[in-house]
Amino acid sequence: MAQQHLDQTDPTAEAVAGDALAQYLRAQATEFLRALRLHRETGGNGGSAPPRGSGGAAGDGPQESVDAARALRRSARRISGSLHTFRPLLDPDWSEEIRPELAWLSGTLGLEHAYQARLERLLLALHRLSGVTALPVRTVDALTVGGRALPGKTAGPGGPAFATAVPERGTLTVGAAKAGALLERQLTLARTRAHSTALQALGSSRFHAVADKVAVLASEVPLTPAAHGTELGPLAAAAEERLDDAVTALPLVTAGHPYNAEALVHGLSPEPSPHPQDGPWHQVRLLLRLYRYAREVLHGGDAPLDVRLLTAGQALNRHRDASEAAAAAAQAARTPRITPATAYALGVLHADQRHEVEAARFAFQQAWQKQPVNAP
Amino acid sequence: MAQQHLDQTDPTAEAVAGDALAQYLRAQATEFLRALRLHRETGGNGGSAPPRGSGGAAGDGPQESVDAARALRRSARRISGSLHTFRPLLDPDWSEEIRPELAWLSGTLGLEHAYQARLERLLLALHRLSGVTALPVRTVDALTVGGRALPGKTAGPGGPAFATAVPERGTLTVGAAKAGALLERQLTLARTRAHSTALQALGSSRFHAVADKVAVLASEVPLTPAAHGTELGPLAAAAEERLDDAVTALPLVTAGHPYNAEALVHGLSPEPSPHPQDGPWHQVRLLLRLYRYAREVLHGGDAPLDVRLLTAGQALNRHRDASEAAAAAAQAARTPRITPATAYALGVLHADQRHEVEAARFAFQQAWQKQPVNAP
Repeated sequence: MAQQHLDQTDPTAEAVAGDALAQYLRAQATEFLRALRLHRETGGNGGSAPPRGSGGAAGDGPQESVDAARALRRSARRISGSLHTFRPLLDPDWSEEIRPELAWLSGTLGLEHAYQARLERLLLALHRLSGVTALPVRTVDALTVGGRALPGKTAGPGGPAFATAVPERGTLTVGAAKAGALLERQLTLARTRAHSTALQALGSSRFHAVADKVAVLASEVPLTPAAHGTELGPLAAAAEERLDDAVTALPLVTAGHPYNAEALVHGLSPEPSPHPQDGPWHQVRLLLRLYRYAREVLHGGDAPLDVRLLTAGQALNRHRDASEAAAAAAQAARTPRITPATAYALGVLHADQRHEVEAARFAFQQAWQKQPVNAP
Repeated sequence: MAQQHLDQTDPTAEAVAGDALAQYLRAQATEFLRALRLHRETGGNGGSAPPRGSGGAAGDGPQESVDAARALRRSARRISGSLHTFRPLLDPDWSEEIRPELAWLSGTLGLEHAYQARLERLLLALHRLSGVTALPVRTVDALTVGGRALPGKTAGPGGPAFATAVPERGTLTVGAAKAGALLERQLTLARTRAHSTALQALGSSRFHAVADKVAVLASEVPLTPAAHGTELGPLAAAAEERLDDAVTALPLVTAGHPYNAEALVHGLSPEPSPHPQDGPWHQVRLLLRLYRYAREVLHGGDAPLDVRLLTAGQALNRHRDASEAAAAAAQAARTPRITPATAYALGVLHADQRHEVEAARFAFQQAWQKQPVNAP
């Protein structure tokens, strides 16, 4: 059935062979090098820690640096994913050498952004839970995601900006304000560490070795001799099948039943994060991404927009983000010497994010059950 | 439209006049007196605080006492509700005198049961949130509702059974166990006070005055002279219209959108319970009950089962219960000198119950949007 679906959405798939893979990998490698150059030109500080005081008014430098770091991760993921899906067509030694290095790179570069996004998500939730609808929009720093400003955030995330006071949170309860300050402190510290790690990584010989390999890839893709005439369709179809199998194993009937209260079942269990029940969903998220990249390879950059895949993928991203935010709230609640009011707010916040997890599963189920656009 | 619906579901409504109301009120008054007699015979201790140690093995006395108290409240509500809906047909002085007294009685008698049910709901939720699926079923005392035993509950709710230890909660975290013990202490104390109040009420001259009035009602309903020929249909239709209007004012579009996160919007706001947003839903619950009683009057005890009304009513009961349980968890979190772990568990519990509130609104919306069975 996976094969059938692929053929229908892509009538030309049969004709696409190894050359298309080479073309795709060259394009992604070129994009990687372009992003790397841009990143170095715009500060090269990892892309997410502009100097103190550099807000929206300070020019486009920091924003460009963020965009460059994102583009770097984006192409690293695509190269790595394509090497995985189309493994039989590529020189196995080369492939097995570069894949873990690309995974290391995108993981290291992504961590800083992840901590920042997690903090934003948790602070926004704290405000929402406090009935604060009009958020004070302050300095929009380079890390602001999707145009949303971080509410009540102290400016200048250049270093660990410890929130000793609780500024501009007059409308929050003491507990919510303290919980926000605690999360800000902990996640800013984690982000700062991730920033240092990313900087070190970008200056390391390990990184230069990856960059050199990608530079070679931009001109010369190490295909196996047989690859030029080999069809890509079956390998992409296999990726889709792995995705379908993983989705089939998900508890989708439960997820499609609103308010099933499943995601919070271990909300108070002694076992800390991460929730074991989230694992299969995270796995589907990765498989869906791999399949999406495989479609890109097949369509040579002209992949038609598959709204179903897109929506399902967004739901799984939201699932991952909420899962990790819930874990961060639970983790913060284990900080010694916090007040009961702080702990209470963190408990509400944890449960709220676990319900976001449940909502994301519902959204995925809704998106997934829709028929593929071109299917009969 | 309300009128139309009423006529369609009940083609004989036109013919039902004041005499049917008199018949209904006499029957409810007789039921009230029967329940009162049974209640006195079976212990007369308010029906919900059997002596320490009297469990399921101690005979049916306590269970009968609970049933009697419930029947007493049930008929008191029906008499009071019918007096309200069919006010123009009844002697206004008499009606205005007895209605608040019946409301006082059912309110006073219901409080003890409400505290008990709230504690059960919260303890069950704590276990669910701890991933404890197999609940230890222990002594099923007279208060057990719907056959569900109270998990890990100390036996003998005859007095304020302070849970000093944390028995049989080995699978809970310290925080969840302590939160459970705190809630058990606070709600058992509240229930014990409500029990005393109910006992006092049943022994008061105020109660005897109500009972005397109901005894008169059982043989002689003070209808106005014109009531005998007056149709009941329009008055029942007006009750339905009041219900429809109140439902129309509810945010049903939001409620019908799963995971709208609306119920927790004030989860951390400084304002303690009750949530102002719950008010309109509580109001609809009361209006739905009034309309249900009006249908009973019209059909003279043979009211066809309206699954839609029934389901909608159950959703609103669940809404009320979850709303009050959430408030009790928030209230418990304000207890001085609790540990952060306890407060965290109470925060998770509060959020969980507020999501139950949201789930109940969704369930109501789903039930309500279904067409009435006999409508075109």
